[in-house]
Amino acid sequence: MTIRRAVVLFGHGARDPEWANPMRRVRERLLAKADDVAVELAFLEFMQPPLAEAIDTLVANGATRITVVPMFLAQGGHLKHDVPDQVEAARRRHPGCRIDQALAVGEADGVADAMADYARHCVERD
Amino acid sequence: MTIRRAVVLFGHGARDPEWANPMRRVRERLLAKADDVAVELAFLEFMQPPLAEAIDTLVANGATRITVVPMFLAQGGHLKHDVPDQVEAARRRHPGCRIDQALAVGEADGVADAMADYARHCVERD
Repeated sequence: MTIRRAVVLFGHGARDPEWANPMRRVRERLLAKADDVAVELAFLEFMQPPLAEAIDTLVANGATRITVVPMFLAQGGHLKHDVPDQVEAARRRHPGCRIDQALAVGEADGVADAMADYARHCVERD
Repeated sequence: MTIRRAVVLFGHGARDPEWANPMRRVRERLLAKADDVAVELAFLEFMQPPLAEAIDTLVANGATRITVVPMFLAQGGHLKHDVPDQVEAARRRHPGCRIDQALAVGEADGVADAMADYARHCVERD
């Protein structure tokens, strides 16, 4: 059977509707880099859809391997406790789909380096 | 007078003490890229010090230009309302120091690109 890969970019969510714009930009960039991967956004609170709904949608559309990529600055209580519980519940609902939770984006070396470059740019531009 | 530049890496904060580790790594990388810049961490809640204290410390140590770089995924209510108020209060306390608030790191193109690269890496590594 063909593996059909998908990513959920999973963010905290906020009351301000503009808050999700950077996640939408990351989604566009990811699709440009990997056009055979389905990419959905999902949120812990304030915004729609929740993680369970995004996963169910991807599986309904044929995904057989889903990676949940937390758009968080760091691993914290949500990512250590609440989200693994939600991922485990999704695995039970979808035994034919492999579902993994990655480390928070802020824990990645390349992201830390880009953040440091941005901070340096902020200081040097004036 | 010599300009003495400083950066505050300003994060939300969390109950989990490990949550600040990525901010500490960004601080190390920034110091490696710009060793003439003083860099302090500060937090909105749960962690110490608050923004006002970090700014006061930098000014006491001679900073004359401070850039507050929000370690947030996106501009949201905190960065649009609460933090500008805190920055304005700090300006009034320190009229000899220029203090600016940058856009959230997650709004930077280079950071969005690094996040998309990380997400792609998560999908492709297995």
